[in-house]
Amino acid sequence: MGTVTILGMGLIGGSYGLAIRERGLAERVVGCARTAGTLRKALERGAADEVTSDVSAACAAADMLILCQPPEAIMAMMPGIAEAVGPDTVVTDAASVKAPVVCIGERCLADPGRFVGGHPMAGSERTGVEHARADLFEGAAYVLTPTDRTSEPSLTAVRELAEALGAQVIEMGAEEHDRAVGAASHVPHLVASALALAVLADEHVVEVHGAGLRDATRIAAADPEMWRQIVMANRDAIREPLARVQAELARVHQALDEGDGQAVAGWLRAASELRRGLGSRS
Amino acid sequence: MGTVTILGMGLIGGSYGLAIRERGLAERVVGCARTAGTLRKALERGAADEVTSDVSAACAAADMLILCQPPEAIMAMMPGIAEAVGPDTVVTDAASVKAPVVCIGERCLADPGRFVGGHPMAGSERTGVEHARADLFEGAAYVLTPTDRTSEPSLTAVRELAEALGAQVIEMGAEEHDRAVGAASHVPHLVASALALAVLADEHVVEVHGAGLRDATRIAAADPEMWRQIVMANRDAIREPLARVQAELARVHQALDEGDGQAVAGWLRAASELRRGLGSRS
Repeated sequence: MGTVTILGMGLIGGSYGLAIRERGLAERVVGCARTAGTLRKALERGAADEVTSDVSAACAAADMLILCQPPEAIMAMMPGIAEAVGPDTVVTDAASVKAPVVCIGERCLADPGRFVGGHPMAGSERTGVEHARADLFEGAAYVLTPTDRTSEPSLTAVRELAEALGAQVIEMGAEEHDRAVGAASHVPHLVASALALAVLADEHVVEVHGAGLRDATRIAAADPEMWRQIVMANRDAIREPLARVQAELARVHQALDEGDGQAVAGWLRAASELRRGLGSRS
Repeated sequence: MGTVTILGMGLIGGSYGLAIRERGLAERVVGCARTAGTLRKALERGAADEVTSDVSAACAAADMLILCQPPEAIMAMMPGIAEAVGPDTVVTDAASVKAPVVCIGERCLADPGRFVGGHPMAGSERTGVEHARADLFEGAAYVLTPTDRTSEPSLTAVRELAEALGAQVIEMGAEEHDRAVGAASHVPHLVASALALAVLADEHVVEVHGAGLRDATRIAAADPEMWRQIVMANRDAIREPLARVQAELARVHQALDEGDGQAVAGWLRAASELRRGLGSRS
C-alpha cells in the first residue's frame, strides 16, 4: 500500500500505526488526531511517519483510511470524510458497533462499495497511544461486515491488511456482528462495571481482594465516554443477553436463599464447563 | 520449624509445600492426600519431602499442620485431626470461609489456642498440584482470624510463616473476613459464572470473543464442587453484596430501556473510577 491514514491516534489507532510500520505494510503512515499532545506522542512512539490535525488533508492523501475514533465521532465526521477522500480511497473503521457505522459510511461515500466495516476484537482497559502495541492484533478475531454493495477489491484490501496484522478474519453481517459482540463484549463490560460499583467502594474488600476480583472487573476501568457511545449505539442488541445475566443471578440468589446446595452445584458446574470450553489463552 | 504437614495436596497445598521447601522454612514437609496419583504428583513436583495417605500419622508428626482441603472436608475431618495431633502442634487452615471453620477448629482441639484461622488470598482458576507454584503467595493478602482464645505463640508462628511466604498479613475477625471476602471473592465468582452461563453457549459469541470476556469469566472455570462448599458455607454474607450487583444491573438496564445516555455515562464513569483505584497489578 502507498499511504495509510489513521484517524484517531489512541490505543487502537496507535497500534495500527505501529503494526503497519513495523511490518512494512505501507510506504507511509499518516496519523491524524485533534490535539498536539497526542500527535507528538504518536510520533515519539513511532506510530506514524507524519502527523497532522488537518482531517481533510489527511483523508485526501490516503490510499486506505482507517477510522479509529469512537462510534459517534465516526458518524459525525463521515460527511466531511466522504468529501475529502480521493476516488480510489478504501475506507474502513475499527468501531465496536457496526450496523449504524456501516449504514452511514455507505450513505456518505460517493462510491459506497469502498466502505468496509471492520472490528478488530483486540483492546485493553488502557487508553491512549502510549499503550499502543505493534502486536495488539496478533491472534485476535477481526470481524469484517461487507454488504452486497461492498466492492470485492476493497474487501480484499482490508482483509489482507487484517491478516498481515496477524488477526483471524471472520466475515458476518453488521447486525449479526452487533448481536454477537453485544453479548461477547458490551454485556461483559456492563457486568464488570456493576460488580465494581457493588463491591469496590468498601475498603475491607479492597484490602482482601485477589486476582479473581481484579480479572472480573478489569474491563470496567476502560474509557467511560467511549463505552457510553458503544452501549448506547448497540443497546437494542444488548438488552436480551443482559437480561439473561440478570436471570442467572436471580436463579443462584434464590438457590442461596433456599439453602439449595444441589441447585448451586449444578449451576456452578454448568458455568465452569462453559468457561473451560473457552480455553485459557491470555 | 521441624515438620510441617499439609493436608490436601491441590493447588494451594502444593504451593505451600513448594514455597516452604524452596525457602527452607522447615526441616521436613509431609504431604497428605487421599489418592496415590496426587501423592505421586506432589513428590514429582517437589511439593513434599514425604507423602502419605495416613491422616493420623501425618498429623501426629506435625509441628505445624496446614489444612488445605475445601471447607466441608476440613469441618468433617476436624474431630479426627484433633485426636491425632500432638500437644504442641499449631493448626492452621487456608479455607475461604472462616467463621464456621474457626468455630469447629477451636471446639475440637484439646487446646483451642493452637488453632489459627488463615486465608491466603491467592489462587487460580486452575486446580491440582500440577499447577502449584512456589511464588503463589508472594505479594498476596493473607488474612489471619485469631480469636480471644488464640495463643500468642501460635499466632506468631502462623504470621511468620505467612510473611516468610512473601504475603501481606492482615488480622481481622472471622465474621468480618467472611463479609469482606464474600464481596471480594465469592460474589465475583457468582457474577463471572452468571455471565458465562448467559453468553458462552452461543457459538457466535465464542467466535468473536476477546480478552475482556476471558478476563471477566476466568474465575468461573474453577472447581465447582469446591465453590459450592464455599458459597453455601458463606451464603449469609454473600446475599447482600449479590443483591447490590443485581440492583446495579437493573439500574443500567433501565437506563438503556429509556435511552438515557447521561445516566449510562455517569454509571460507567463511577465504575471506571472505582476500578482504576484498584490499580492494575494482575
